[in-house]
Amino acid sequence: MGMVGGGPGAFIGEVHRKAARMDGGIELVAGAFDIKPRNSKQMGREQRIDPRRAYPDYETMIEKELALPEDRRIDFVSVTVPNNLHFPMAKAFLEAGFHVMCEKPMTMDVREAVALEKIVRESRKVFGLMHTYTGYPMVKLARDMVRQGDLGKILKVVVQYPQGWLIRPIEREGQQQASWRTDPKQSGAAGCMGDIGTHACNLAEYVTGLRVQQLCADLTAFVKGRRLDDDGNCLLRFNKGAKGVLHASQVSIGEENNLAIWVFGENASIEWHQEHPNYLYVNRIDAPQEVWKRGNDYVGEKSPAAGRATRLPFGHPEAFLEAFANHYCNFADTIRARMERRKADPLFLDFPGVKDGVRGMKFIEAVVKSSHKGAKWVRM
Amino acid sequence: MGMVGGGPGAFIGEVHRKAARMDGGIELVAGAFDIKPRNSKQMGREQRIDPRRAYPDYETMIEKELALPEDRRIDFVSVTVPNNLHFPMAKAFLEAGFHVMCEKPMTMDVREAVALEKIVRESRKVFGLMHTYTGYPMVKLARDMVRQGDLGKILKVVVQYPQGWLIRPIEREGQQQASWRTDPKQSGAAGCMGDIGTHACNLAEYVTGLRVQQLCADLTAFVKGRRLDDDGNCLLRFNKGAKGVLHASQVSIGEENNLAIWVFGENASIEWHQEHPNYLYVNRIDAPQEVWKRGNDYVGEKSPAAGRATRLPFGHPEAFLEAFANHYCNFADTIRARMERRKADPLFLDFPGVKDGVRGMKFIEAVVKSSHKGAKWVRM
Amino acid sequence: MGMVGGGPGAFIGEVHRKAARMDGGIELVAGAFDIKPRNSKQMGREQRIDPRRAYPDYETMIEKELALPEDRRIDFVSVTVPNNLHFPMAKAFLEAGFHVMCEKPMTMDVREAVALEKIVRESRKVFGLMHTYTGYPMVKLARDMVRQGDLGKILKVVVQYPQGWLIRPIEREGQQQASWRTDPKQSGAAGCMGDIGTHACNLAEYVTGLRVQQLCADLTAFVKGRRLDDDGNCLLRFNKGAKGVLHASQVSIGEENNLAIWVFGENASIEWHQEHPNYLYVNRIDAPQEVWKRGNDYVGEKSPAAGRATRLPFGHPEAFLEAFANHYCNFADTIRARMERRKADPLFLDFPGVKDGVRGMKFIEAVVKSSHKGAKWVRM
Amino acid sequence: MGMVGGGPGAFIGEVHRKAARMDGGIELVAGAFDIKPRNSKQMGREQRIDPRRAYPDYETMIEKELALPEDRRIDFVSVTVPNNLHFPMAKAFLEAGFHVMCEKPMTMDVREAVALEKIVRESRKVFGLMHTYTGYPMVKLARDMVRQGDLGKILKVVVQYPQGWLIRPIEREGQQQASWRTDPKQSGAAGCMGDIGTHACNLAEYVTGLRVQQLCADLTAFVKGRRLDDDGNCLLRFNKGAKGVLHASQVSIGEENNLAIWVFGENASIEWHQEHPNYLYVNRIDAPQEVWKRGNDYVGEKSPAAGRATRLPFGHPEAFLEAFANHYCNFADTIRARMERRKADPLFLDFPGVKDGVRGMKFIEAVVKSSHKGAKWVRM
Repeated sequence: MGMVGGGPGAFIGEVHRKAARMDGGIELVAGAFDIKPRNSKQMGREQRIDPRRAYPDYETMIEKELALPEDRRIDFVSVTVPNNLHFPMAKAFLEAGFHVMCEKPMTMDVREAVALEKIVRESRKVFGLMHTYTGYPMVKLARDMVRQGDLGKILKVVVQYPQGWLIRPIEREGQQQASWRTDPKQSGAAGCMGDIGTHACNLAEYVTGLRVQQLCADLTAFVKGRRLDDDGNCLLRFNKGAKGVLHASQVSIGEENNLAIWVFGENASIEWHQEHPNYLYVNRIDAPQEVWKRGNDYVGEKSPAAGRATRLPFGHPEAFLEAFANHYCNFADTIRARMERRKADPLFLDFPGVKDGVRGMKFIEAVVKSSHKGAKWVRM
Repeated sequence: MGMVGGGPGAFIGEVHRKAARMDGGIELVAGAFDIKPRNSKQMGREQRIDPRRAYPDYETMIEKELALPEDRRIDFVSVTVPNNLHFPMAKAFLEAGFHVMCEKPMTMDVREAVALEKIVRESRKVFGLMHTYTGYPMVKLARDMVRQGDLGKILKVVVQYPQGWLIRPIEREGQQQASWRTDPKQSGAAGCMGDIGTHACNLAEYVTGLRVQQLCADLTAFVKGRRLDDDGNCLLRFNKGAKGVLHASQVSIGEENNLAIWVFGENASIEWHQEHPNYLYVNRIDAPQEVWKRGNDYVGEKSPAAGRATRLPFGHPEAFLEAFANHYCNFADTIRARMERRKADPLFLDFPGVKDGVRGMKFIEAVVKSSHKGAKWVRM
Repeated sequence: MGMVGGGPGAFIGEVHRKAARMDGGIELVAGAFDIKPRNSKQMGREQRIDPRRAYPDYETMIEKELALPEDRRIDFVSVTVPNNLHFPMAKAFLEAGFHVMCEKPMTMDVREAVALEKIVRESRKVFGLMHTYTGYPMVKLARDMVRQGDLGKILKVVVQYPQGWLIRPIEREGQQQASWRTDPKQSGAAGCMGDIGTHACNLAEYVTGLRVQQLCADLTAFVKGRRLDDDGNCLLRFNKGAKGVLHASQVSIGEENNLAIWVFGENASIEWHQEHPNYLYVNRIDAPQEVWKRGNDYVGEKSPAAGRATRLPFGHPEAFLEAFANHYCNFADTIRARMERRKADPLFLDFPGVKDGVRGMKFIEAVVKSSHKGAKWVRM
Repeated sequence: MGMVGGGPGAFIGEVHRKAARMDGGIELVAGAFDIKPRNSKQMGREQRIDPRRAYPDYETMIEKELALPEDRRIDFVSVTVPNNLHFPMAKAFLEAGFHVMCEKPMTMDVREAVALEKIVRESRKVFGLMHTYTGYPMVKLARDMVRQGDLGKILKVVVQYPQGWLIRPIEREGQQQASWRTDPKQSGAAGCMGDIGTHACNLAEYVTGLRVQQLCADLTAFVKGRRLDDDGNCLLRFNKGAKGVLHASQVSIGEENNLAIWVFGENASIEWHQEHPNYLYVNRIDAPQEVWKRGNDYVGEKSPAAGRATRLPFGHPEAFLEAFANHYCNFADTIRARMERRKADPLFLDFPGVKDGVRGMKFIEAVVKSSHKGAKWVRM
């Protein structure tokens, strides 16, 4: 494994490293960690990788890694830089023959996303997109309940992703995480809706197996001077007649990372909360509510994907890092199967990829367009 | 107190009786309880009222009560019949000189509502509208926190009211509660949005002190053959720049009566759930979440209205009936002040009235209109 | 219904009145409300009872009520005075031929309790004891699950009743509720354990159908100068081999009225919390947790007693007053059956009585004795 | 890092590996993973360590590691074998000059524990004991609140550790985790109380800074044929006058790993639940409850130890593995300081050690003795 991004002070790069390392099957051996070569070197030392493989930039990294014998090269790279760099870097690594794990949102716009989809297809490389939240075992259980027909036809989906950390204009006080996220040049056309609204949309589509067909969105930048939305509300229409609501915010004081979903079918409903990820609430008509708890045999029997995504016994809570690591496991197992010319177990393929990335960019395009028109219905 | 409606098998009429009786200050002495005179007589016996005052219909009730000496007449009547009868009955009692407590939604349409507003004004009688949920002490606390500026400027409101009891077409199986609620002739232009969406809108306006100015709604009748919406999602725009989401449903399996509200301001936020009504969650920037618990001195000191609406010490839960009874207390205390030619304490006036009823009808009109137009913005 | 106690400023007397009044089947018509005749008169006026029936003391009340024609007399009296007066008053009313509803703990000691049991038996009158918490529908459901064998043999019971309101010596600042509760002359041999420990023990025996046979208790008066325990911890041994823990406190800051019980059987377990009384948690081996919610058909089908104790539909929370009122309903229906010479429906008999009172006094005697001996096992 | 134990199918050994690996500062390079040399080899391969360093037994491991140049040897070993082997192995490694991280309970009895304490002292090596739960940041916050005097004098502690996984005699069905835990030869004098009761006692002493001085315990083996307790209840008396209750179980159906603690002081109280580890509930007199949430600045400001033990921002839940890893971080940082002849930051020293192990063995000895005597008070 190699990495671009994740230099000193970066948040998500370090999360990638911890998650990739967790299960012992992935080793970080190279990186272009920072725009400043010196910082990249420093991080290389901290990560105890060979100093020759702490590169000043990604172009050098590609060139030098390709110069190594094939069995000593990185197998894949993790791209953990601001959004505007995802496309050129992912493209370069794919075209150089490396598998790629990319942070989301995948690109800056739909055009780039579609282009990247083509590049992935033609490269025949494995491409993963870090929509973390579908890595939680109880989300996989939820999806499998829907697939197995427990809910019957789906009528309604409510999905939310409120946060509160951008209630003050901290991007003007040098807060690194806030700065690039509120800058259209680095983030793209949407702020809150790109950063976290895409997760909500991805979660809804993953769990239900449906696609948002149209949406009607009202985006707002509540903090004065902010150039991108920090809040948004949407009405959703899915295929097969389901309706929904999606709302996200980064100015909702008290909300930390409160991604949550409710799916209502004609026979049952489910409810899941990211901040309490080990539980899935299931409701059936005229019956007690069921609380499904991660790590129990009955979970793995219902959902082999949830079972596979579980490390610890019930009552020993698992959380965000494990969800993250689950995507790395499946991504790496898929690569291994490819390298060993085996057919990948379908369970391995359960990680987000380029198609999710295209959906995400379409979501961003649609919410921005709808909102600009004064919240009119827009096809997605 | 007299009553129209609340015959054998009725749900809300009996709730009115229990709530009115709770504190010992109101006595039921007359009623036209049922469309069948025989049933009305029977309910009169069950309620142990003078058999001569169990009337066959409301016209007779008015006539006979007026024939009694003034100090033996009912002071007010509670109107607990299907929606289509609210207007004519409320009108008749008001014009006959009786105060009126009316179930919601107040009338069948905005025209009737505005007409009733005029009648109330001209009658100089006290008119109460049973939007139960603003009777909860912690809702009053929430409103007072907003009023006192704890939240600062309000940015966003999320309010929901999901239920699941109409997921099957039980109106076609003779279920009395379902039958009139799904019949446009008895219910008006909206189903779910009229029955419970109005409560959600009322709660949001009560707590925030803001007014919904525009909304964009997507209503659905998910159950085949149902003539009125059983689900609806709305985007909201309030005055003073606040935005919001309102969603309600009667086909959300597992949801019982899950009215809940989140109000996000620039300095703090609050959260309240009807099914756990004794708690108000308050969040401030970079500080632990506060859980305010009903019955504590600190609640009454912050909000005298909440203190006044409290009967039991902390930890001894209060619930729906008490919220209901709180409106009766304030309504009755206002009438008493009127009768005794005293100025009513402002705290007495804290019960929903004809203005809330007009807002409710405008809400129904707006959501139906917006939805018919394909979810376009409509002024409310 | 008549009442002794419940004068101005009293807490529990007013709760009795609200609860008795709730369902319309009980009317307060007489009382000796206060030790000061003038206060008794005043409360009589507030309750709008015939001024001649607001008596200066209970002896007069008995004499004058007996002088009334039988069909105009009170049928029963509610005794809501400090503990030391329960015995003489209950005795006097029973011997005069009145049914009695009595506050708990029933008497000052076991001797009085056993004497009262004999008096009740010989009087052939109905005697109710207000152990409020077994009036909750979900507690009745819990008991019926145990009875129907869902749990199998019971292994372990954990029951707690922590409060925090006596953390400061408010009895020395004139707080009326605190004063008599911490005074051995008015309260008996135990403070916290008498006031609320008895509720915990009663709840455990009611739900499980078992009897505490031995206990080992460690009581403490944490607040300096307090003469009775304000905290206590017990090990329990039940018949049939079950073990348990009971702890109660009135000095646990932050705890409001947190009575809760966990019962673990060989096949299933249950959990219930008084502050969230509408839910019963049920766990079976290798299956999702079940949350049973009050008001649903499946509850009433499993437990007719729970169904009968329910007034409002699911999602419309019921609480403390309704639990209280449920005991009054059953008590009154039992009296009515007696008066009409009908056999009482077994469901009517589901209210606490003199046997529970004897158990309560034995519990107090046992915990005090065990603690005095340095926490040795004592039979109960 | 080297490891003894953690062969194929072992649970806790793999947890040690994941936790040690998480932060990138510790590398597994040697091990005697299994009693069967072949299994040890296999695990070595899985862990991708040098095959020459996958040893058949711990004696060989010590010998061969010592034969390596000092800078290529393991620095410390993790002992993750059944309890009966902790002492001889820890002793051997310490005496050979290696630092040791040991699973709990530390030894088989107090005698061994005291002997090990002496060995550690004389070896001048760093010894860590894996009482996982004090690794949670919110537990550290709780301890620091107590230390800083927020609670005032502590009055009462309630600590519980119920599980349900041993409700059936699965040790007789070959379940490896159950087999050794229920075997006195491998586990020691106590079953449930040794396995998890020790965690509860350790947590109580860690958070409060108090010591259990006396206890009175009632242990039971509910499952027929089981030779060690699977359930236990204790009364506790701490120094400085605090009282408490401790109960633990492995036959409580529905309980998964429900370690929880409540500490009540004269000015405030705290509550923490292992299954929801990111929250600490704080109650002060007549004030709203405070919910402190991991990852916020206000947590780190109150408790630098909690801040240091935090990897992810608020709302991104952390859980069991991170708690585990926190002990490894502090343990490793202490070793590093030792190796670099620096004084260890006091924060580094915040991991459980040999003194905790001695306390644990005294706890086991005391509960067993008390219970055998029929639940009499025993000094600890």
